[in-house]
Amino acid sequence: MIETRLTRQFGLSVPVVLAPMARVAGGRLAAAVSRAGGLGLIGGGYCDAAWIAEQMDLLRDHAGRAPFGVGLITWALDAVPEVLGQVLAQGPQAVFLSFGDPRPHADAIHAAGARLICQVQDMTGARQALAAGADVIVAQGAEAGGHGAGHGRGRATMTLVPEVVDLVAAERPEVLVLAAGGITDGRGLAAALMLGADGVVCGTRFWAAAEALVPEGQARAALAVDGDATFRSSLVDVARGLDWPAPYDLRGMRNAFSAQWEGRLEALAADPAARAAWAEAAANGDAGIAAPIVGEGIGLIRDAPGAAQIMARMAQEAAQRLGHGARPVGT
Amino acid sequence: MIETRLTRQFGLSVPVVLAPMARVAGGRLAAAVSRAGGLGLIGGGYCDAAWIAEQMDLLRDHAGRAPFGVGLITWALDAVPEVLGQVLAQGPQAVFLSFGDPRPHADAIHAAGARLICQVQDMTGARQALAAGADVIVAQGAEAGGHGAGHGRGRATMTLVPEVVDLVAAERPEVLVLAAGGITDGRGLAAALMLGADGVVCGTRFWAAAEALVPEGQARAALAVDGDATFRSSLVDVARGLDWPAPYDLRGMRNAFSAQWEGRLEALAADPAARAAWAEAAANGDAGIAAPIVGEGIGLIRDAPGAAQIMARMAQEAAQRLGHGARPVGT
Repeated sequence: MIETRLTRQFGLSVPVVLAPMARVAGGRLAAAVSRAGGLGLIGGGYCDAAWIAEQMDLLRDHAGRAPFGVGLITWALDAVPEVLGQVLAQGPQAVFLSFGDPRPHADAIHAAGARLICQVQDMTGARQALAAGADVIVAQGAEAGGHGAGHGRGRATMTLVPEVVDLVAAERPEVLVLAAGGITDGRGLAAALMLGADGVVCGTRFWAAAEALVPEGQARAALAVDGDATFRSSLVDVARGLDWPAPYDLRGMRNAFSAQWEGRLEALAADPAARAAWAEAAANGDAGIAAPIVGEGIGLIRDAPGAAQIMARMAQEAAQRLGHGARPVGT
Repeated sequence: MIETRLTRQFGLSVPVVLAPMARVAGGRLAAAVSRAGGLGLIGGGYCDAAWIAEQMDLLRDHAGRAPFGVGLITWALDAVPEVLGQVLAQGPQAVFLSFGDPRPHADAIHAAGARLICQVQDMTGARQALAAGADVIVAQGAEAGGHGAGHGRGRATMTLVPEVVDLVAAERPEVLVLAAGGITDGRGLAAALMLGADGVVCGTRFWAAAEALVPEGQARAALAVDGDATFRSSLVDVARGLDWPAPYDLRGMRNAFSAQWEGRLEALAADPAARAAWAEAAANGDAGIAAPIVGEGIGLIRDAPGAAQIMARMAQEAAQRLGHGARPVGT
C-alpha cells in the first residue's frame, strides 16, 4: 500500500496506471492491473469501436467492480468522435487522451462523470491540458516505448515531471501529475514520487506481462536485450501506412528491418512488398522484421509474469525504498 | 547531511558532484561546491594545461583542504596525454573522464592515488568503464546539457541509472554509480538515490551559479526559458570548428542562430563569417547567436545564487523528501 492523491481519488492501492498501449493493453491486461490495485486502461488506440467493445466485455468478465478506463489517440478520435460516446456509455472511471488537442473532447468526458487524463510530452502540451480542464496530466518522457515526441522535440521524464508539477502547483494544484517513460520497477516508482508525481504510468513493463496481447516471438526477442536496443523513428508507422502528425514518432527496438530502412523512409513508403512483409511479420511475431514496440526500460525487464506479480513486486520495492509506512511529501 | 557510499568515500556531506563543464567550472566554482560539502571538479575539457593550472591555483586559494578533482574530455586527452601527468601532480582526489575510451589513462590515474570517474552514456560505455577499472561510473542521460550521446543513441537518466546499477551490482559491486542529466534540485537528487545511485552529477544547476564562468547575457537568457527550449545538435561544435567524434553531440538552447543554421551544418562549416560571428557572440555573451549550453533542467532554474546556497537548498529538499534521517536503501 502506497498512498498518494491518485490512490485516494481512484480507489487504488498502488499508484500505478497501465499505459493504454494500442491493441496490446486489452481487457484481460487492464482487468489484471485493476484487480491488483492499479488503474487498468484499455488501449483503444485508433478508435476501432468493435475491438474496444470486445475488450470491454473481457474486462468486465475479469475485473469485477474494480476501476478502469480507456485510452484513445486524440487525433484518431478527431476523425470518429462518436466513438467517445460509445466508450463513455460503458462507464469508465477515466478516459486517457494522448497525441493531439484534448479540448474538443473534454466536455463530453466530464459530462459522463469520467475523469480526463491528458498525456503530454512538453510544457506546451501541459499548458494545453490545463486549458482543457484535465483532471490528471501524464508527463511522458521520450524514453517511453511507442509513440511520443520525436524529431528532437522529446523531453525526458526526469526533467518534465517536476516542471509540470511546478506548473500545476502554480495554476491548478488540484490536478494530479503522473510520470510516464522509463518506469519499470519499484525504483522508478519511488523516483517518480520523489519528483513530485502522484503516481506513474507503465507501458513497457506491462507489455511484457503474461496478459499482454503481444506475439510470443516479439516478447522473447525483447526480454533478451539491454536498454540501448531501442530508438525513436517513424519507421514502423511508415511500414504500416499510418500518417502520424509531427512531432510524434515511435520508440521501438532496432532490428534487421530497421537497419535496412532507417533513413530511407520514402523508399519504404513506396515499397508495397516490404510493407506487406512487415504486416505479415507483425501478425506472426517475427521480431526480425516487426520489432517489439518497447521503451528504454526494456533493459530492466527479464521476465513476463502476470500483471498481478508485476504490481506486487513494484509496490514492495517502492515501499522498501520509500521507507515502510512512508508517504511522499505533500500527499 | 545525506549519507551514501559517495559521501563516505570522498569525505562529503552531500552526495553532489559538480559536472566538470569545460571552461565554465573554474577554480572558484569547484572550490565553492567542495567547501559546501560536495565534490568540486574543474572543467579541464580540451586539456589546455595553462588554463587548468590557473584554475587549480584559484581553487587552492578558495577551497582549503576540501576534496576536488579535474574533468577531461577523453578524446582530447588522447592527443596530449602528458596533460594528465600535470593534472595528477596537483593531487586531485579524482579524475573524471568523459567521451572516449578511458582504458589508456586508467593506470596513471590509479598510480597517482586518484580515483577514476568514468562518465558513460549507454550500457556499452558502462561495460567499458568497468573494464577500465573505474572507481565511479557516471550514467549520463541525454537530457543533460553540453556534450553527450546524440544521433539517436542517447539514453535517459531514468532508465540508464538503474540499468548501470544492476550491471555494477552483478560485476563489481564496490564501484559507485552516479546519476547525471536533468538533476537540478533536491527532488532530482532524491529520485536518483531511489534509482539506486550513490549520488548525482549536476551541470546546468551550477552553470547558473554566481561563480560559474558564464557571460551575463547568456545567464540572463537561460533563466527566462522553460525546459522545452533546448535541443541536441552538432551545431555549436561546427560553429566553433571542433571535430567531435560520433555519437556525441551537444544539448543547448535554441536561438535565432540555430533556427538559421540547423539542418545546414555543412553550409555553416563553410561560412567563415558566420563562424566568426558565433565566436564573437560567445565572447560577448550574445545569447541570440551563441546560445547557452544548458540541459533540459534549465526549466527548473530561475535564479543564479552562489553554489553554497544551491547545495544547501538541494540537500535540504532531498532530505525532506527522503524523510529526516532517512538513508537510501543499500547504503
